Amino acid sequence: MSLFEEDLKKLKAKILEMGGLVESAIKDSVRSLTDRDNALAESVIKKDHIINALDVEIDEEAIKLIARMQPKGSDLRFITTAMKITTDLERMGDICVNIAERALEINREPILKPYIDIPRMRELAQGMTRDALDAFMNKDQRLATDVIMRDDEVDDLKYGIVEELLSLMMLDPSKVSRGMKITFVAQYLERFADHATNIAEMAIYLVVGKIIRHTTYASDQADSAT
Amino acid sequence: MSLFEEDLKKLKAKILEMGGLVESAIKDSVRSLTDRDNALAESVIKKDHIINALDVEIDEEAIKLIARMQPKGSDLRFITTAMKITTDLERMGDICVNIAERALEINREPILKPYIDIPRMRELAQGMTRDALDAFMNKDQRLATDVIMRDDEVDDLKYGIVEELLSLMMLDPSKVSRGMKITFVAQYLERFADHATNIAEMAIYLVVGKIIRHTTYASDQADSAT
Repeated sequence: MSLFEEDLKKLKAKILEMGGLVESAIKDSVRSLTDRDNALAESVIKKDHIINALDVEIDEEAIKLIARMQPKGSDLRFITTAMKITTDLERMGDICVNIAERALEINREPILKPYIDIPRMRELAQGMTRDALDAFMNKDQRLATDVIMRDDEVDDLKYGIVEELLSLMMLDPSKVSRGMKITFVAQYLERFADHATNIAEMAIYLVVGKIIRHTTYASDQADSAT
Repeated sequence: MSLFEEDLKKLKAKILEMGGLVESAIKDSVRSLTDRDNALAESVIKKDHIINALDVEIDEEAIKLIARMQPKGSDLRFITTAMKITTDLERMGDICVNIAERALEINREPILKPYIDIPRMRELAQGMTRDALDAFMNKDQRLATDVIMRDDEVDDLKYGIVEELLSLMMLDPSKVSRGMKITFVAQYLERFADHATNIAEMAIYLVVGKIIRHTTYASDQADSAT
């Protein structure tokens, strides 16, 4: 294995590590809400700095790798794309912090209704993240396309949640404040899935060479990002 | 002027062009709401593809520039940072589309209350965008820091809007649906300003060399991103 391949392998490992931490964070933040577990919410907030540190590290190493090895073609594309992907992962970590913060607020009040679609959104969004990163690492266009398709399901769940909460809030004003906060959580999950979709689009970009972003998927993305 | 400087100048011009389009989009999308101007909302939605096309173009040119000129040090950092910044600008364009879409929905219903803080948020967010890009282009650390500070004001306005709308919604259930949609607009504006803040942070990164992201500002960012 060449020195370049060695360095690239390390870079990939760090990105996967970051992805794993983001997956844990989304799982734990939603669990802190559904299980009304404040300690878990606090731990998500406390651990976010580890994700942030990896973002900085990967950026620095990618820059060094380009400067030292002067890669071209698909290697150069891989590294610059990796730098963009870690920005998405870092913001996904921030979203988990936001969910945990809302959980701490929501958990102070009586339960509004059992959570069914929120955990389902989380499950989908988490799976999309894992698969988007796999697609990126393995240049797997089919898997990346599949991730992009799954985003519609997340959007549909979010619309359903917002509609249901709106009805509850209109019938009973005492539910307005809680309903609004749970709506925020549904929006966070939708944005989380949007970031996974962005990663999948970049994975396709890497395979196809030309940028497919903003062609077929652009309108769906804009539609869904509420 | 060397060939590299020439190419870099072109790249900068394209980024500024993209920034100008994003500034117009945020101005028009909010005006489509405050002036109940559906044609303006439609035009924001229609013109988003121009912003997207610039994102793709800048990415391609940045990759070519690195491959051909093999820049190091601050030039390399500038170009990879530019690639990240255009991702922010592209998503800011998407947010303007979202605002325009909500405007079309909200404009169908009777006016809830005069818009005062939403245009103020827009003004701040737009100014932050312009200054963040200027700070990036001119490596102006002081201006970038100022942009980051202004984000707090945007966040405060958003909290005020959400609180006010919550009260209206609790008093009168017929206002719940409209109140929720206007809350979404306030959130979009907050996210728009967050992207401007991200650009300002990257501008500082460019000056300082070391990444300052996620150090002093990280917790503010996470706090505010609701």
